[in-house]
Amino acid sequence: MASPTEGKSNLSFVLNKTHDVCFEDRPVPELATEHDVLVAVNYTGICGSDVHYWQHGAIGNFVVKSPMVLGHESAGTVVKVGPAVKTLSVGDRVALEPGYPCRRCAACLGGKYNLCPDMRFAATPPYDGTLAGFWAAPADFCYRLPESVSLQEGALIEPLAVGVHIARQAGVRPGESVVVMGAGPVGLLCAAVARAFGASTVVSVDIVPSKLEVARKIAATHTYLSRRVSPEENARGIIEAAGLGANGGADVVIDASGAEPSIQASLHTVRVGGRYVQGGMGRADVTFPIMALCVKEVTASGSFRYGSGDYKLAIDLVAQGKVDLKALISETVAFGRAEDAFNKVKEGQVIKVLIAGPNEEISRAHAAGSS
Amino acid sequence: MASPTEGKSNLSFVLNKTHDVCFEDRPVPELATEHDVLVAVNYTGICGSDVHYWQHGAIGNFVVKSPMVLGHESAGTVVKVGPAVKTLSVGDRVALEPGYPCRRCAACLGGKYNLCPDMRFAATPPYDGTLAGFWAAPADFCYRLPESVSLQEGALIEPLAVGVHIARQAGVRPGESVVVMGAGPVGLLCAAVARAFGASTVVSVDIVPSKLEVARKIAATHTYLSRRVSPEENARGIIEAAGLGANGGADVVIDASGAEPSIQASLHTVRVGGRYVQGGMGRADVTFPIMALCVKEVTASGSFRYGSGDYKLAIDLVAQGKVDLKALISETVAFGRAEDAFNKVKEGQVIKVLIAGPNEEISRAHAAGSS
Amino acid sequence: MASPTEGKSNLSFVLNKTHDVCFEDRPVPELATEHDVLVAVNYTGICGSDVHYWQHGAIGNFVVKSPMVLGHESAGTVVKVGPAVKTLSVGDRVALEPGYPCRRCAACLGGKYNLCPDMRFAATPPYDGTLAGFWAAPADFCYRLPESVSLQEGALIEPLAVGVHIARQAGVRPGESVVVMGAGPVGLLCAAVARAFGASTVVSVDIVPSKLEVARKIAATHTYLSRRVSPEENARGIIEAAGLGANGGADVVIDASGAEPSIQASLHTVRVGGRYVQGGMGRADVTFPIMALCVKEVTASGSFRYGSGDYKLAIDLVAQGKVDLKALISETVAFGRAEDAFNKVKEGQVIKVLIAGPNEEISRAHAAGSS
Amino acid sequence: MASPTEGKSNLSFVLNKTHDVCFEDRPVPELATEHDVLVAVNYTGICGSDVHYWQHGAIGNFVVKSPMVLGHESAGTVVKVGPAVKTLSVGDRVALEPGYPCRRCAACLGGKYNLCPDMRFAATPPYDGTLAGFWAAPADFCYRLPESVSLQEGALIEPLAVGVHIARQAGVRPGESVVVMGAGPVGLLCAAVARAFGASTVVSVDIVPSKLEVARKIAATHTYLSRRVSPEENARGIIEAAGLGANGGADVVIDASGAEPSIQASLHTVRVGGRYVQGGMGRADVTFPIMALCVKEVTASGSFRYGSGDYKLAIDLVAQGKVDLKALISETVAFGRAEDAFNKVKEGQVIKVLIAGPNEEISRAHAAGSS
Repeated sequence: MASPTEGKSNLSFVLNKTHDVCFEDRPVPELATEHDVLVAVNYTGICGSDVHYWQHGAIGNFVVKSPMVLGHESAGTVVKVGPAVKTLSVGDRVALEPGYPCRRCAACLGGKYNLCPDMRFAATPPYDGTLAGFWAAPADFCYRLPESVSLQEGALIEPLAVGVHIARQAGVRPGESVVVMGAGPVGLLCAAVARAFGASTVVSVDIVPSKLEVARKIAATHTYLSRRVSPEENARGIIEAAGLGANGGADVVIDASGAEPSIQASLHTVRVGGRYVQGGMGRADVTFPIMALCVKEVTASGSFRYGSGDYKLAIDLVAQGKVDLKALISETVAFGRAEDAFNKVKEGQVIKVLIAGPNEEISRAHAAGSS
Repeated sequence: MASPTEGKSNLSFVLNKTHDVCFEDRPVPELATEHDVLVAVNYTGICGSDVHYWQHGAIGNFVVKSPMVLGHESAGTVVKVGPAVKTLSVGDRVALEPGYPCRRCAACLGGKYNLCPDMRFAATPPYDGTLAGFWAAPADFCYRLPESVSLQEGALIEPLAVGVHIARQAGVRPGESVVVMGAGPVGLLCAAVARAFGASTVVSVDIVPSKLEVARKIAATHTYLSRRVSPEENARGIIEAAGLGANGGADVVIDASGAEPSIQASLHTVRVGGRYVQGGMGRADVTFPIMALCVKEVTASGSFRYGSGDYKLAIDLVAQGKVDLKALISETVAFGRAEDAFNKVKEGQVIKVLIAGPNEEISRAHAAGSS
Repeated sequence: MASPTEGKSNLSFVLNKTHDVCFEDRPVPELATEHDVLVAVNYTGICGSDVHYWQHGAIGNFVVKSPMVLGHESAGTVVKVGPAVKTLSVGDRVALEPGYPCRRCAACLGGKYNLCPDMRFAATPPYDGTLAGFWAAPADFCYRLPESVSLQEGALIEPLAVGVHIARQAGVRPGESVVVMGAGPVGLLCAAVARAFGASTVVSVDIVPSKLEVARKIAATHTYLSRRVSPEENARGIIEAAGLGANGGADVVIDASGAEPSIQASLHTVRVGGRYVQGGMGRADVTFPIMALCVKEVTASGSFRYGSGDYKLAIDLVAQGKVDLKALISETVAFGRAEDAFNKVKEGQVIKVLIAGPNEEISRAHAAGSS
Repeated sequence: MASPTEGKSNLSFVLNKTHDVCFEDRPVPELATEHDVLVAVNYTGICGSDVHYWQHGAIGNFVVKSPMVLGHESAGTVVKVGPAVKTLSVGDRVALEPGYPCRRCAACLGGKYNLCPDMRFAATPPYDGTLAGFWAAPADFCYRLPESVSLQEGALIEPLAVGVHIARQAGVRPGESVVVMGAGPVGLLCAAVARAFGASTVVSVDIVPSKLEVARKIAATHTYLSRRVSPEENARGIIEAAGLGANGGADVVIDASGAEPSIQASLHTVRVGGRYVQGGMGRADVTFPIMALCVKEVTASGSFRYGSGDYKLAIDLVAQGKVDLKALISETVAFGRAEDAFNKVKEGQVIKVLIAGPNEEISRAHAAGSS
């Protein structure tokens, strides 16, 4: 039988430069090592960072200098496996972890590969993303989906893994109270993960009432609409709304917004001896209540992408019915409508929109053939 | 035999209000419970907070509203023990842990008594301090000094315990690199503790060259004189001066200064995945490089006073010769010269000055009688 | 109004010596400190240790030398509060934590009060238990029950707290696989807590099929009937039955049986790098696969009673509907039938039997009066 | 210039089968990947496991089925570097970490590569060891030695890393008391590392008085000669000898002997809430005081080889003068006398004997050429 990718184009959604995207026929990627697999991409979610590169051409030090395929929230179907791969077969449905590390630095050997300085991350310059027909990657960064998890849900394992990593950095434990600042996709998923980790009280905080409604549906036991008052006053409001006064505040506060007022309120909402995780991206420098951190002995942690075990747990949470990803999918559009989808996300009309892969028939044929 | 305190005055150094101190004859304290002991105070160090109350009448929410005895860095000699005390005897030389908690709240039962909301802390309004003839306290907050540790050193166990607590919050481990911002007494002791904990590289940072000289003598393997440049540039300077480039920065950064530029430089000096502890007190809010914390996954912790095991370890470090407290004692003055001593500390002429207790002959007589 | 306990007897169920129990009228206990409360006991569960003292007069070094009130799994109603008590009021329904520590030793100050050498524990010689009309205790060891938790459930917070402590010692995390050896009350509750902590796979193992049925109803995702084969073979059976082969075994194994073959199988069932907790009591010395522990780098922990936060979390798990205590209550009998109840437990006819307190009308009156 | 290894033989010390060793000319190994280096071996220490394979042909499930080069405690000089290697240059003096993992399994990605099921470990069947002229390995498993550390010391970084890993598994902290059962090379190095980690009290225990003398010279603050009495009695003897009674036993006990009586005494020597690490290899099953572990809430851990960061820290401890490896080197012999050296180790006449590499002149020439 001929190679499944022979003679096939690898249609890709490419960011040429700021505001300038196009479709391009690119060669199907080769397997770089015997440990790699080739995956036909089925669905890809759009992340705020994709939109940011499209609109601004850069995030921090990462600058788009040459055309780059967008997208990194994907699931697909394995169409080829390298000779050393034992864990995957052609036809397997997989969630893609879109960055892979050097495996040889102190961070990698120490179990913190997300901090690898040589990480190759999809749709982060200069590396291409997954909004394409095919994606080649090491087999250990492709996670088989159980039957009960669909490929659409599989595409959202990526943002869910972000939430899992944040909740792990926060060390959320059963019975705790968790406040999540921000009810965008990551904030919603943080709230959902906190619930799944056994938090008794989960408070979603946002400035948009409709987002809080979604939070209530998905995960939050309480919500709080932030007001234009001091961070101390919003903190008092949150504590009162969720009945956290006797506890002296929240055991855990997660900022998933990156907004300065939320960061400030976080430090006033967390209890003495509590934990706070900065998960949202925003301005590099903010006015910060450092003495609150000091005298309350708050433990503050950053959270960057996801690491060892996060994808596995994210899939497990969905498979066990503990996190409902379907509720976040606003719409699925065909590959050819990718730019439309980007516009919808930019305008904030949707929670998550998925873009179908350009080669659905290929992966389906293989999936069928392999079963 | 008559009670050792019968008919004795309890001379005390009292802050009436801002800038207004006096000596006062107060009654010798009674033992509040059968678990308490009475200690004749031998030596007391002066802390920046004592000077701050004297000069400003308040620290944060703690306001001096009625006359208060100053002082909380003390060692003394046990002169009376409650009937339930088994661990101490009359004549024992002890370092005093000057705050004691409620023992019944979640913080206390959870092993974090320094976070007890009902802490009674010496020379923190409304509680009197230890610059007096006698001090009554629970026996478990008075730590017997081994023969090799003098009462003068015993008075400085308190600031050393602050350094021990900070180093523990930072989780300093053998072989690590530790940068300490600030080379005042607490910064020096943090550096000394970091060395004693096995740090290979200890960098003291300050704006005063003479303080760095002391740091080099006591503990630091490297020093860095901060300049009036951006925090990023000072961070680069520190990293270069201490050869931490290959490590991507310092494993641990401790801010013992409370100064905004130091806090900012801390976040730029710490390596990806490193730890930073805010130990110094300063302005409530500062401009803070929050995205550095986020994307480097820095763990930041506050540190407040000291807790379970800190005094014991502090004494052990001195007894084992791992921390040299004598090098920090600039001078010892008689009780009657307490105000002079406060002036010297205020003017920054000294590292640590000790004030002898007013009843030295009493405690000495007891110490002699008991041996 | 007259004191609620004035002129009232404090009927108690007393173990005189091995096999010899009786009812005795004892004085109502006084409040030992201003921080204490008096509780009218409503329900008490029978623990294996109660039965063991009754049958054998001793457990290890704890020997019944003089008559001792039995019982330590109780809930009751507050009938008097000491003047310093702020957290409880007359009429409050509370679960009793039946041991209280010295609050002054290194274990207590370090947050491990269950390891206090001076612990006063109910129905452990020489301390009286809770099978009586009234129980006086420090307020911080009496936990208010939320409306949704009944007093019968409240009595079983004690064994649930045992399970919570074990699961915490094991560090059970979401998504993990947990094998519990033994499906007696503690084993069942360990399984339930493991599920509540988010374990994806919970395997109950026992030699009695009917117990495994209960386990399946309450918590277990899988069960395994131990056979008279080698521990290695039972371990293989467990791993196969629960599909843990790809994981190399279970992430966590809890022995809640104390039986030598179970302990041995535990070490062969746990994966490389996994955790094992010894929760069940049994023979002091067993043949133990120490090299399995060594080369697999297993972390083994003991678990003794419960400590800081365990009662609070146990109550929360019941209130949140995550653990079903009602399913464990086989029967509730009147106080006068206490010996019958002990016989039933001895003969293994029941999971948990509760004994009603002798003064139900009193506590009810107070509860009514206070609401 | 010609390749440095071209036309060179790779003289190797080969175990053919039990009791049967020989020298063999083998091809110089190729670099397997662009990340590898070739090292001329300078010195190799002999480990008990080498002797055990020689005498018994197997350790547990690892059976010598075909001829295998012995040796895994080595240091050498880099003679060739792969094109992707940035951290090492020809002429660098390096300590060799003699096992390298798959980098792709859950253990590897989670930072526990020593638990990798696909580990390729030198002189563990079927993998050849380092008693040869040359050794090819990934650059990240070859650690540059600072000037102050000799190549002879470099060869003993391997057993020191074993001690570092054990001390880390034990979590030895400053001020703690550590008892080490066994004063063979690993036990001595555990004691030395415990001291370097800041333990105040380090007790070496053995049945051979001369070994205890060495322990005292190198690291131990106290020693105890085990007697033929019950483990409880030896435990009492250790606790008394080291003044650990007030602490209720040792904070940490490390068994570096693998002997049943030592393991038993370990559990009776460790304090309530203490830690015990099984570092020594011995019989698969022993009689074990499991209830001591349970009711004292002891944390027991296995320790297997070494992992992330251990080599780096081991080298640092030597470079900082905190561990004296020279004191352990009894003798260095020429490569041709390898069998003699094995005999000496077997007969217990020496602590550590080093075997020089067969190609000293080559590596020296390169070292000279590169400087």
